[in-house]
Amino acid sequence: MKVIGLMSGTSADGVDAALVEVGPGNPPALKHIYSTVFPYPPDLRQRILQLATPPGGSATDVCRLNAYLGELFAQAALDVCRRARLAPETVDLIGSHGQTIRHLPIPRKEGDFTVASTLQIGEPAVIAERTGITTVANFRTRDVAAGGQGAPLTPIAHYVMFRDAQKGRAVLNLGGIANVTAIPAGASPAQIVAFDTGPGNVLLDEAAFRVTRGKTDYDANGELAAVGRVSAETLKWMLTHPFFKKAPPKSTGREDFGPSYLDEVNRKAPSLSPADLLATLTAFTAETVALGFREFILPKMKIDEVAITGGGGRNPVLRKMLAERLAPAALVEPDALGFPGRAIEAGAFAFLAYLTWHGRPGNVPAATGASRPVVLGAIVMGNHRPGATKAASTSSAGAAAPKT
Amino acid sequence: MKVIGLMSGTSADGVDAALVEVGPGNPPALKHIYSTVFPYPPDLRQRILQLATPPGGSATDVCRLNAYLGELFAQAALDVCRRARLAPETVDLIGSHGQTIRHLPIPRKEGDFTVASTLQIGEPAVIAERTGITTVANFRTRDVAAGGQGAPLTPIAHYVMFRDAQKGRAVLNLGGIANVTAIPAGASPAQIVAFDTGPGNVLLDEAAFRVTRGKTDYDANGELAAVGRVSAETLKWMLTHPFFKKAPPKSTGREDFGPSYLDEVNRKAPSLSPADLLATLTAFTAETVALGFREFILPKMKIDEVAITGGGGRNPVLRKMLAERLAPAALVEPDALGFPGRAIEAGAFAFLAYLTWHGRPGNVPAATGASRPVVLGAIVMGNHRPGATKAASTSSAGAAAPKT
Repeated sequence: MKVIGLMSGTSADGVDAALVEVGPGNPPALKHIYSTVFPYPPDLRQRILQLATPPGGSATDVCRLNAYLGELFAQAALDVCRRARLAPETVDLIGSHGQTIRHLPIPRKEGDFTVASTLQIGEPAVIAERTGITTVANFRTRDVAAGGQGAPLTPIAHYVMFRDAQKGRAVLNLGGIANVTAIPAGASPAQIVAFDTGPGNVLLDEAAFRVTRGKTDYDANGELAAVGRVSAETLKWMLTHPFFKKAPPKSTGREDFGPSYLDEVNRKAPSLSPADLLATLTAFTAETVALGFREFILPKMKIDEVAITGGGGRNPVLRKMLAERLAPAALVEPDALGFPGRAIEAGAFAFLAYLTWHGRPGNVPAATGASRPVVLGAIVMGNHRPGATKAASTSSAGAAAPKT
Repeated sequence: MKVIGLMSGTSADGVDAALVEVGPGNPPALKHIYSTVFPYPPDLRQRILQLATPPGGSATDVCRLNAYLGELFAQAALDVCRRARLAPETVDLIGSHGQTIRHLPIPRKEGDFTVASTLQIGEPAVIAERTGITTVANFRTRDVAAGGQGAPLTPIAHYVMFRDAQKGRAVLNLGGIANVTAIPAGASPAQIVAFDTGPGNVLLDEAAFRVTRGKTDYDANGELAAVGRVSAETLKWMLTHPFFKKAPPKSTGREDFGPSYLDEVNRKAPSLSPADLLATLTAFTAETVALGFREFILPKMKIDEVAITGGGGRNPVLRKMLAERLAPAALVEPDALGFPGRAIEAGAFAFLAYLTWHGRPGNVPAATGASRPVVLGAIVMGNHRPGATKAASTSSAGAAAPKT
């Protein structure tokens, strides 16, 4: 099957679109065909971040942006088809992550129930209607319903992309929030360890926006951090946040490490210069990633290579700090290991859509904390049946339902 | 197939649950088995109404209530199974309308797009996970994506329930908002006329709540309205609202006729006594229904019988006003025509879920204004394949996909 994955992370700068070929087999093979980035129009990023940062945003915003982002996700899918010179009619499925607006995986009492929740928007009905392609979306809610964190969901795809018989490998995704998937050499999926390590770029982006008074919304090439000095005292205080001590499964979001956390840092260390603030926040990301490895990965397995993806991978200051802390493991380019770095997250949701259509669970309970493996997502039908785009597909017989 | 429909209307007082048997045939047969009302816990109604009334409610509320309402919808489904003495494993599908939080079908400019939107909550992943039953939800967004109002969606089910070879029939649903489906004698589905006529009980409920200072949230038996006098002047002004002149397709919601509209009425007629206010609002509902018939239905067909459903059907003052204005058409009980009144709306969403699972469109473009018939809703997989609960089902071969 040809499947398009669509992803917009907590940084909210645009839609990553990856066209992949999936299947057959168990686990199914996954091959990258083409990928691209579809940037959001100017001003939309701030509008999304405002909505995604508590207490920001109204139900009206959720309703309107859900439909509007659906249009943009659809355009991103059509764009990747056009660039790959493929007619949308020949694409079987879309897997769309959507844009996370809230992530509230810690259960709280509601009436007689204990309820956890997560909210991704980017209406799949709009995507299916504009592209004609059957679309799977809202992957996280089912894992949360099954008692999980709803995150991370990409480990099973990382496993298919990067597992190796001889080498222990980790995939480190430095998006707004950072998450890691660790795969020991010769592992089965049950041996994967995966969790959110803490902030990726979210604090760096917010701080860069503030200290430049909105002139930039990220620290390009780590230029600000490069000329600053890390405040050991502030960093030490930051590392006392209870999230880092918590054993996996665990996930986090802008609710924990966003603008209001940065306000706290500013109150704690009001005299830091802009450059020192950026340097300290960059060290905080590197240190918390290293802490995650030390506490929760390295006691269980040897890691030889760490493949870095996400915007943070393009920040040389952050990379240098990580290389020092993760040695002797080597930082490597995912492209060299067979899957382009910028397509990993979007490709993962294409893979998850394939699993869902075939009635196969997509979550790794050890990573999310779910009580069981579940079929993720909601399916919105397109104009043609997935698998029916090719003459002889063996996949359609059992499609869209678990084997009974 | 055995299918459960779940519905909570704009009145937000609880979940209507209807267990029906659907199929085979085209249109498929629809038989009522059992239905019940699962009331919301105390205080939840006000919380929902607050969220559903602009500018009320935050994205956090949307996220949390989406999950919590999912739990309640799931309980309503399990409750109807228990009462009907049926194991959930023997139910093929759930069709869940959800709770409307915003309905914004009038397109507005967003970047390069013209975007309309609608938002229903009550997470289907929670329903599927708790019940084990494959769940279809979010029916309205696809029709909106196809250029429609996303409402009314029940006409195709009303047609299957009530069409008659000799008699022209209308189904009048007096929920928070009132909608009508008119089916000429011996009609094909293409001849259905259906639209929202305006407010049903929404203004009556809100006014009763206000004038009793929260002691009641509806005018039980029309007791307040019964002792009041209709203010002809206020009514005349109310009827000048542009919604009533607009030809179908059209739909409306609490955004147009909710608390802020009632504020407007109060400003226009500040001296009305509580009873006179209720009498005038009751006449407003009756008059706007009659206006809908006169302008958009009776010029096209003869209507012999009007089947009334929804909470407003239990208000004798409103019934009397309607009977006078709709004569010579007779007001009849839906139960007498073969389908219990309280199960009509929930039963309709069960029917729509059946159509979706079989890849068949559920909207009537003439009613919603959509550019084409579309397969509605998003499918979340349960533990067993719909149609596989019985030994010999012919339905599963083509399930979940349009015929290509």
